[in-house]
Amino acid sequence: MLRNNEITFVNTHLNFWDKLNTNEKNLVISNTSLITYNKGFNLYSADTDCLGVLIIKSGELRTYILSEDGREVTLYRLTEGNTCVLSASCILNSITFDVHIDAECDSEVFLLNISTFSKLCSQNVYVENFAYKTSIERFSDVMWAMEQILFMSFDKRLAIFLIDEMSKTNTAEISLTQEQIAKYIGSAREVVSRMLKTFQSEGMVELSRGSIRITNKEKLKKLL
Amino acid sequence: MLRNNEITFVNTHLNFWDKLNTNEKNLVISNTSLITYNKGFNLYSADTDCLGVLIIKSGELRTYILSEDGREVTLYRLTEGNTCVLSASCILNSITFDVHIDAECDSEVFLLNISTFSKLCSQNVYVENFAYKTSIERFSDVMWAMEQILFMSFDKRLAIFLIDEMSKTNTAEISLTQEQIAKYIGSAREVVSRMLKTFQSEGMVELSRGSIRITNKEKLKKLL
Repeated sequence: MLRNNEITFVNTHLNFWDKLNTNEKNLVISNTSLITYNKGFNLYSADTDCLGVLIIKSGELRTYILSEDGREVTLYRLTEGNTCVLSASCILNSITFDVHIDAECDSEVFLLNISTFSKLCSQNVYVENFAYKTSIERFSDVMWAMEQILFMSFDKRLAIFLIDEMSKTNTAEISLTQEQIAKYIGSAREVVSRMLKTFQSEGMVELSRGSIRITNKEKLKKLL
Repeated sequence: MLRNNEITFVNTHLNFWDKLNTNEKNLVISNTSLITYNKGFNLYSADTDCLGVLIIKSGELRTYILSEDGREVTLYRLTEGNTCVLSASCILNSITFDVHIDAECDSEVFLLNISTFSKLCSQNVYVENFAYKTSIERFSDVMWAMEQILFMSFDKRLAIFLIDEMSKTNTAEISLTQEQIAKYIGSAREVVSRMLKTFQSEGMVELSRGSIRITNKEKLKKLL
């Protein structure tokens, strides 16, 4: 059940809101709840039940695919105001692949439960439309990730990642392990480690346990 | 303009047909034409204008992405009865990536032109819904291709490809060059060549110029 001050946040991110009748709006309000997921929590995977629609209030969720031998490839990350329907993909017949979703930090997420979303999808074409449209945005994210992984040279990919992280956190210090970076960019830790050492020897970064300090952003940008 | 005997084929593949009014149905009929694309023809790329919706009557279209240095990665192939809306992606704002589409053999394709499709999408939510839903099916195809490329060992991928081709053409002789196979499975010719020679030395295939003969399907299947 949503509180009054939460309704506005949720309905501005569900673009079908104006197409709902009063009864349907009440359904959304009574079947959406605010959940806190702790850092590292796996919200969703091939083995868990269908969750419903996620609307991120704060924090960050990471979506990835997982190989049989445990290798992860990050598809995209969701932050404040993003919505996710792949967590409700059991009701979207056209989606036949499995993703995993983890909380990257403590995250507050509104969850519209699956049975309500399923009901709305079947009775209101605008809700169904929202589900497909939101999935398509993720399709574009995935294509971007795929082109990066398949086509871009590794030094460029790593440089882009470091610069993005720096802008996001607004500091030159990136508090991530090499293992985490490898996961985010779909590579192996050894490969990341080797390239970071190259960057360090060229004076672009300084490495310490669990973090990387960018010391020459301009030089790093020349790799792009 | 569609002929009477063509209307049924087209409307069974446009699942929004029953949601169109008479005027809209007439719009589709007068703005869809049957086009023959010759083998190798590039129908669609980042540089060409938006085409419209494609409905394949016969033949095969291949959709792929292209790196700056000319490397192709096949995303999926479309055959008889499949529809394609990525060729109309200019009107789908959520799609921000570029694909290329080639005719793999002489192919007959119905084309609903982009201006009509755009008009219908904006005035009829069921048409918009069709556009998104069809794209989502391709999203699933792409995820499958991506998982294969990223996670599957190369011998397994090549074996799957050869067995698929064999079932499709219903003969043990696959008339494709090693260059073509490399394109289809997103690899380099040298890598394909090396693996095929391994398969040959293990008695699974026989290689000749421009074709591959599968001599031991059972053994090849054991790789899957």
